[in-house]
Amino acid sequence: MSWLKLFSRFTSSAWKATPPSLRSFKPVQPSSPFSSSAIAGPSPVGLPPTTPGKEKPRLVVLGTGWAGCRLMKGIDTSLYDVVCISPRNHMVFTPLLASTCVGTLEFRSVAEPVGRIQPSISTAPGSYFYLARCKSIDSDNHTVECETVTDGTREDALKPWNFNVAYDKLVIGAGAEALTFGIEGVKEHAIFLREVHHAQEIRRKLLLNLMLSDVPGISVEEKKRLLHCVVVGGGPTGVEFSGELSDFIIKDVTERYTHVKDYIRVTLIEANEILSSFDVRLRQYATNQLTKSGVRLVRGIVKHVQPQSLILDDGTEVPFGLLVWSTGVGPSPFVKSLQFPKSPGGRIGVDEYLRVPSVPDVFSVGDCCGFLESTGRSVLPALAQVAERQGKFLAGQLNQIARAGGGYANCAGEIELGPPFHYRHLGSMATVGRYKALVDLRQSKEAKGLSLAGFVSWFVWRSAYLTRVISWRNRFYVAINWLTTLVFGRDISKI
Amino acid sequence: MSWLKLFSRFTSSAWKATPPSLRSFKPVQPSSPFSSSAIAGPSPVGLPPTTPGKEKPRLVVLGTGWAGCRLMKGIDTSLYDVVCISPRNHMVFTPLLASTCVGTLEFRSVAEPVGRIQPSISTAPGSYFYLARCKSIDSDNHTVECETVTDGTREDALKPWNFNVAYDKLVIGAGAEALTFGIEGVKEHAIFLREVHHAQEIRRKLLLNLMLSDVPGISVEEKKRLLHCVVVGGGPTGVEFSGELSDFIIKDVTERYTHVKDYIRVTLIEANEILSSFDVRLRQYATNQLTKSGVRLVRGIVKHVQPQSLILDDGTEVPFGLLVWSTGVGPSPFVKSLQFPKSPGGRIGVDEYLRVPSVPDVFSVGDCCGFLESTGRSVLPALAQVAERQGKFLAGQLNQIARAGGGYANCAGEIELGPPFHYRHLGSMATVGRYKALVDLRQSKEAKGLSLAGFVSWFVWRSAYLTRVISWRNRFYVAINWLTTLVFGRDISKI
Repeated sequence: MSWLKLFSRFTSSAWKATPPSLRSFKPVQPSSPFSSSAIAGPSPVGLPPTTPGKEKPRLVVLGTGWAGCRLMKGIDTSLYDVVCISPRNHMVFTPLLASTCVGTLEFRSVAEPVGRIQPSISTAPGSYFYLARCKSIDSDNHTVECETVTDGTREDALKPWNFNVAYDKLVIGAGAEALTFGIEGVKEHAIFLREVHHAQEIRRKLLLNLMLSDVPGISVEEKKRLLHCVVVGGGPTGVEFSGELSDFIIKDVTERYTHVKDYIRVTLIEANEILSSFDVRLRQYATNQLTKSGVRLVRGIVKHVQPQSLILDDGTEVPFGLLVWSTGVGPSPFVKSLQFPKSPGGRIGVDEYLRVPSVPDVFSVGDCCGFLESTGRSVLPALAQVAERQGKFLAGQLNQIARAGGGYANCAGEIELGPPFHYRHLGSMATVGRYKALVDLRQSKEAKGLSLAGFVSWFVWRSAYLTRVISWRNRFYVAINWLTTLVFGRDISKI
Repeated sequence: MSWLKLFSRFTSSAWKATPPSLRSFKPVQPSSPFSSSAIAGPSPVGLPPTTPGKEKPRLVVLGTGWAGCRLMKGIDTSLYDVVCISPRNHMVFTPLLASTCVGTLEFRSVAEPVGRIQPSISTAPGSYFYLARCKSIDSDNHTVECETVTDGTREDALKPWNFNVAYDKLVIGAGAEALTFGIEGVKEHAIFLREVHHAQEIRRKLLLNLMLSDVPGISVEEKKRLLHCVVVGGGPTGVEFSGELSDFIIKDVTERYTHVKDYIRVTLIEANEILSSFDVRLRQYATNQLTKSGVRLVRGIVKHVQPQSLILDDGTEVPFGLLVWSTGVGPSPFVKSLQFPKSPGGRIGVDEYLRVPSVPDVFSVGDCCGFLESTGRSVLPALAQVAERQGKFLAGQLNQIARAGGGYANCAGEIELGPPFHYRHLGSMATVGRYKALVDLRQSKEAKGLSLAGFVSWFVWRSAYLTRVISWRNRFYVAINWLTTLVFGRDISKI
């Protein structure tokens, strides 16, 4: 096989040799603060543009969610130097995040370090991972401006600093933000369920409330408030979290917190119907299952959130000890700030190839992007499977571009691309607790197709997610966590 | 065997029936704020005294360390109601805490919830676990005053409140505090290594510094500072942490953070000799091993700690990115505040039976107690094995007292006790990294005996601790963690 290696090395170097002639790198504008500090300043802070012929083209990826990580996994690092910029150094396996809040799974079992997904970023020369947030994009000069994320809580912590990174290709996979609909008090008093630190906070608070409600000097009313867990939003996340919580109460609280077990309750508040994207029979099944497990389903709209209670639109006051908010996502302030074409709903507008039209060498994937109206396609839902499929598609396309000599900035104009991105929905799944789940294999809301509910679905749900977990290490840990939860119950140490 | 059960039930109820006549319960002093609020107030906040004949005597345990937990495990809950008061709901398996800082072990594998050690405390009527700190002890009225531990960081957090608990027997196992010798800046800028949250903070900071030092815009000097890990204190904790850290650097940093691997260093600062309690040959072995692994050993005394550097007594400034402080422990402010007899060194003074003389029904175990000078015994070292042995001894003794009818307050005067507590040192162990450890089986510093160093010791070290881990669940997880670290390397996601 050594002749094959030699051949591939020869061909790849031949490919690398071609770009310079094709390339038309824009001259530096001295008026731009980014390019000047990155290139011309006395001590350039940041990564200057690559030098064709000497270096590989640089692919900059913003974000480490489903889309960005799947993209980096698929990128051929012999073609690109990869620079990943994200405020977290791991990907979160979001479908299993709800399970970590009550100790069914451990936090680390659902977090996958980026360095394990694409080892190059912390080992290859020219490839990097930067723990930072992107602040702005200067597409004229092919540069992004970033700010480091430091642990600002301690006095001896570093002050954040800014730096620039020049890119040949830029992929924006910066994700979306939890929607609060401008309701006052949500950000201050509710906990979202999107990151590992959210799950940690929920777990700490739940265990703290369970313990505090047992201490002398607390009234029955206050005890009931402390142990009232309210979930707002009846989408898959809200339903799965409610299901996990009721499992925790039925199996663990009744056995291990007998003094307070009669006071704990779960309420799920939804303005419309729960699991609205699912088949109507599955919705009914989920409603029955949740009610059977003791989850109170309330139809209502939250008007206002106070530190220890929320107000519904009919004026009802609902006291709570724990409030989890999951009413979908919308564009983040960073996405809103970009002067790019936008899709309906305010996401970054992309064409069928996930390119941002009129902005050369910029692509977008995942929850932060949406098809432009001009494509005639509708904006895809903010789902892990959409993001993952986009990441995979774009990795292939970028590899193809680099192989055809279009890897460097401003030189991919004439390269022929393959078929455009096409999304085929594989179905939806959600667990409702007590070894029961829903599996909806219809391709869209209107289509007909297989839908299942019950124990078999639960088994399908667990098996499917176990195979989707990225690394063997975490696959192993998820299986071990499930086993120990079954044998020993959930872990209740508040650390 | 059913006749045996019947017999034992008969005899135990016979024992329970005797106490009232023996008992001389003190009349309530209306001047005392504790007893009045606990018994006579309009809304008594707290647990009032037990009623002999109706209830079991109440054993109050302060603390959930090695001593308190071993004691609760050994207590016969058919004889006592157990009320445990502690600011944390779990016991920490301290000898393995250093391994969690670098991801060799997971945090939860070394934390054991109290409810798993003694399930009665959260299930039996009359037994409780209170997440609180003891503020003072009113031994005249057999009451402790406590304050709840709430999560005071959020605006909607509960304010802490006070409550009283009357006891029949009180065991103080509240532990000790890290010593800083009054050196300025230690508490603000160094991290101790005594609780799980300390290990979490060390891990977060280590990973943060590794990532930040790779970001553009940082000088070589600053990079070196960020990646300089300084450990102060050459006892077993400091040495084991240094060993783990050098293992992490040799195996994981060099593979996964190649850009910065040449900048990371570990320095261990000790005023005298490292591992001073170990055999001289073992000390030499440890010194060689650590040096070989790249740990720089510095003899010096820290004079002053600043946010990003420390000053030694010879004036040298040592910049650091991470500072871990482990220079032994001393009496906590709570122990200092108690108006009880004290041992040399300021610990709670106890006799050979671990009773606090002149204070009826009060016992003390673990790092917070020491033999009184009058016993002619020397104060035992603050070791897990001392605390555990004391907890076990006292559990047996308290069971014996209750069986003889002395369980209630003020009625154990005439009960004959068995042999006093006798401590026999089983030996010391410490790992120095790279599959090497020290095992010193001498009974005291001056005695002769077996001492081992090397791989066999390391194997003994791991096996010994694996068998000492309290629950099967955690034993299983520690083994699994070790296995996955071996196969996949350490986890580096900063969550």
